Amino acid sequence: MILTLAGGVGAARMLAGLMQVVPHDELTAVVNVGDDLELHGLRISPDLDTITYTLAGAINPETGWGLVDESWQARTMLEQYGGVSWFGLGDRDLGTHLYRTQRLSEGADLATVTAEITEAWGLGVRLLPVTCDALRTRVTLAADDPSTSEFPCLSAGSEISFQEYFVQRHHGVPVSSIRFAGAENARPTEGVLEAIATATTIVIAPSNPLVSIDPVLVVPGVNDAVISRRDQVVAVSPIVAGSALKGPADRLMRELGHEPTVVGVARIYRDIAATLVIDEADVASAAAVEAEGMRCVVTPTVMDTPERAAALARVVIGAQS
Amino acid sequence: MILTLAGGVGAARMLAGLMQVVPHDELTAVVNVGDDLELHGLRISPDLDTITYTLAGAINPETGWGLVDESWQARTMLEQYGGVSWFGLGDRDLGTHLYRTQRLSEGADLATVTAEITEAWGLGVRLLPVTCDALRTRVTLAADDPSTSEFPCLSAGSEISFQEYFVQRHHGVPVSSIRFAGAENARPTEGVLEAIATATTIVIAPSNPLVSIDPVLVVPGVNDAVISRRDQVVAVSPIVAGSALKGPADRLMRELGHEPTVVGVARIYRDIAATLVIDEADVASAAAVEAEGMRCVVTPTVMDTPERAAALARVVIGAQS
Repeated sequence: MILTLAGGVGAARMLAGLMQVVPHDELTAVVNVGDDLELHGLRISPDLDTITYTLAGAINPETGWGLVDESWQARTMLEQYGGVSWFGLGDRDLGTHLYRTQRLSEGADLATVTAEITEAWGLGVRLLPVTCDALRTRVTLAADDPSTSEFPCLSAGSEISFQEYFVQRHHGVPVSSIRFAGAENARPTEGVLEAIATATTIVIAPSNPLVSIDPVLVVPGVNDAVISRRDQVVAVSPIVAGSALKGPADRLMRELGHEPTVVGVARIYRDIAATLVIDEADVASAAAVEAEGMRCVVTPTVMDTPERAAALARVVIGAQS
Repeated sequence: MILTLAGGVGAARMLAGLMQVVPHDELTAVVNVGDDLELHGLRISPDLDTITYTLAGAINPETGWGLVDESWQARTMLEQYGGVSWFGLGDRDLGTHLYRTQRLSEGADLATVTAEITEAWGLGVRLLPVTCDALRTRVTLAADDPSTSEFPCLSAGSEISFQEYFVQRHHGVPVSSIRFAGAENARPTEGVLEAIATATTIVIAPSNPLVSIDPVLVVPGVNDAVISRRDQVVAVSPIVAGSALKGPADRLMRELGHEPTVVGVARIYRDIAATLVIDEADVASAAAVEAEGMRCVVTPTVMDTPERAAALARVVIGAQS
């Protein structure tokens, strides 16, 4: 069984690549829930949904999130009321959130609801939210953020939710720290520690190390379990030539004291992963990565076509030490 | 100011008639919230919405509830998941529930949110939920209700929510009693008692007396306030020739020991209303209504066109003793 530690878009593409080269029932992903939010009374799990929709072939190809063939009638009405509309909820996507919220209110846990949702989409891949308990990524601003027509001014030192940072403020404000509220009391979802212990390979997807992978590792027991499998852990760098392909990983790394390079990524992962896969664009840094104590595998990592995602998946599976 | 005690569809039509003959800012409605429900985490207020959409000219003319030009993408997705889909939530309508739920979660009360929603629709009529506190109509079944593909079997004596009775089971099962959970602790919304005290006419809309008007009167202080204005209270019979125009009012009246006629309606309202308006079809019962101690006004009451609704409104306004 191949286990993937997963955030959102980058992990979804990695998993879509793995699906092409590994039987689906041999794939498990442990997914970040630190990005989850409650909005309009609904429970929204962006990373779980991005992965589900992507693997189902139903992702909106233009945005990389949400559903294809989407309509926006609810949002238009919400805007007519002057309501909160910065978090884009399409009508079809709302069906997912309505279902999840209803089932949680009936007492089902997030893992059960996730299994029901993925089964309805016909996914053979197993998605495990890393925890069914509340764990929320919170971001502290390093500078004042002036108000816009969409949101009020915030002063440096203010703490906001991940989605307020990421979506509402378009990750456009510098950050001084990140915190995972509730992490100390979060329990790993049933099956997570066993999956880590028994996987033939553990892939750390090219997700943001600080806000996608760290909130997976921070759940008590997970980091230690991964460390004990270090030889089987293959991380894929989300940084290519000093930049994130998507999102603010490079800026966040710099703001929080990390070098926004594959060497910086190696320093983050070297204790838990024996191998780092980096892009050909960073071939000159391979020796520096190895100097950090990791095996370094150089290959094209940009998954801009299904074929390239499959090729990367093959390399990742073959890369463990 | 003309005050209307209001349920859903019948009240909405009565108010639409009154809007044609009274300046909008002289119209207030005190609206039932016993039908409200929480579903999928959303707070839904069917009577408030039916009135709002009707007065805004946006009601779905085919169903009498929900919005015109509606789409059903969220519901289709919910059905794909096997989720709860018996309560029809259209995509546009969802925008209203998302807004209401968000604002309530921010600490706004239902009256404030209702004012915001009606203002967004440009209504000049003031809608006051009778209470901002939780008050829920509960129905006890008089007989076993066999299971269907949509819901499980319930035995006689089971208590269900109003919408489980009305929508999920299509009000197709006999009822032994009705209860308004939370009524004893519900406080009238600010402005309700004052509106009752100062209205020139109080109209009891042709809504269901037992499940639309009773949960308005049951809020502590409301019934006494209406009684003290009895001479100014004009009730419009929802029963025409022994039947309800819409919904189960006739059956419910019979099941709960009331005569399902205008005389039965008079017996329900005689303590709080001096005048009962009945349809021409019931002209033969006018004397029997007066024998119950109410003035009886006979006029066409079926509001199947805007003109007939306006004509009824004129009679109602002129009918007080």
